[in-house]
Amino acid sequence: MKKELRILKIGGNVLADDQLLDTMLTTFANWTGPAILVHGGGRSASEFSRRLGIEAKMIDGRRITDAPTLDVVTMVYAGLVNKKIVAALQAKNCNALGLSGADANVIRAHKRKVTTVDYGFAGDIDEVDDRAIKALLEAGFSPVCCPITHNRQGQLLNTNADTIASALAVALARHYSVSLRYCFEKPGVLRNAEDDSSQIAILSSLLYQELKQKGLIHSGMLPKLDNAFGALEKGVREVLIGNPTSLQSGEATQVVG
Amino acid sequence: MKKELRILKIGGNVLADDQLLDTMLTTFANWTGPAILVHGGGRSASEFSRRLGIEAKMIDGRRITDAPTLDVVTMVYAGLVNKKIVAALQAKNCNALGLSGADANVIRAHKRKVTTVDYGFAGDIDEVDDRAIKALLEAGFSPVCCPITHNRQGQLLNTNADTIASALAVALARHYSVSLRYCFEKPGVLRNAEDDSSQIAILSSLLYQELKQKGLIHSGMLPKLDNAFGALEKGVREVLIGNPTSLQSGEATQVVG
Repeated sequence: MKKELRILKIGGNVLADDQLLDTMLTTFANWTGPAILVHGGGRSASEFSRRLGIEAKMIDGRRITDAPTLDVVTMVYAGLVNKKIVAALQAKNCNALGLSGADANVIRAHKRKVTTVDYGFAGDIDEVDDRAIKALLEAGFSPVCCPITHNRQGQLLNTNADTIASALAVALARHYSVSLRYCFEKPGVLRNAEDDSSQIAILSSLLYQELKQKGLIHSGMLPKLDNAFGALEKGVREVLIGNPTSLQSGEATQVVG
Repeated sequence: MKKELRILKIGGNVLADDQLLDTMLTTFANWTGPAILVHGGGRSASEFSRRLGIEAKMIDGRRITDAPTLDVVTMVYAGLVNKKIVAALQAKNCNALGLSGADANVIRAHKRKVTTVDYGFAGDIDEVDDRAIKALLEAGFSPVCCPITHNRQGQLLNTNADTIASALAVALARHYSVSLRYCFEKPGVLRNAEDDSSQIAILSSLLYQELKQKGLIHSGMLPKLDNAFGALEKGVREVLIGNPTSLQSGEATQVVG
């Protein structure tokens, strides 16, 4: 039987709330067994871009990463946000080790092809080195992964954090029974984004198609759920979506294939 | 007999020169056997501070690290500079792994006590986890260390990169025969800072005292050399000081105890 591996992705609104973040990091630090944390940091990146006079450009929720923006996201994701999380986890006796995709060559990507949109230095994942990550997990480290990858030719790239979490989950499903958990500010996936009591307990693929057609699930939730269903199809055991409280209590939305 | 470990510290003026940096990284990547790179990044930090409207304050060559400055140095050192070096080394087939002192708890420090000067979030080193670094070296990784440490209570701290290099060298001298190499823009330690041909081939402690008294060695070179002699006294095998060319050709200044 495979050992359980928990992969937790923490989104921007939770990172921006010290209290929520601390609750989630405490839960993470208290888990026993191997665990990986993946974080975004888009809100801080937008703020520093603004302060540096670099306009943040988004298309369909994806950042357009020109060269100055790549420097900002590298600084914010791999520097500020990653090291604050690592230091906070170390204070909670969790042996955190921060990683970008370039470190130990854990995530190799390529620059997204220019079609109708030029996303600039956006990276689409080619390969996750599951053996390198497994070696770090077995050495007792808890990897803390930021959404920066590289092309193995010296170029850093900006990659969506939800996608990194699911790519890690899929690659490590060869070795572990993987529970992938997306943490955001809502208790789970909602039928009505304005009403927390409309939370869906179990989201099947069939229900997802229905809610998508009715327009009840839309915008930022779509790529997250596409990633979730994709991960389940590729051997990930479970996907949970919720906030620090619902993920802790077991009341988060469970996505099932 | 102990295995050789090379520890290379790259200073700010070399980091700011793409050509010099590439030469040094190529040499580093081509070394066989365990190696650690330590980098600063003060010039980029000053530039981003200025662009963010945060005044860079220095006393005796040491940065005063208030809270906004700590964010900047964390972003620049642990983010921008560290990941650019890691990606460049990976492109040269060197399995680089970026580390701050918080990652894997490799360097624990305390906030410098306030005396006549309040250095803010400046960290003085308490402990290097030589076993964690040795484990990473033995797993085939080349650690790339930035000058950010932590106090194990969640606080990141800004620590001098020369000091980090010598602290790593001393801690790892238990396990390895350590060669500590300081790379800057000059071919070695000079009798006359304006004249490269005045380079000292071998700098003994006696000669150092003499040159110091005559005022021929001064300012930024003093803490670097104090670190070098301190490291030799504590079991480091050799200390070399030079630029990418002289360190490569063996013509750098050799510091002897």
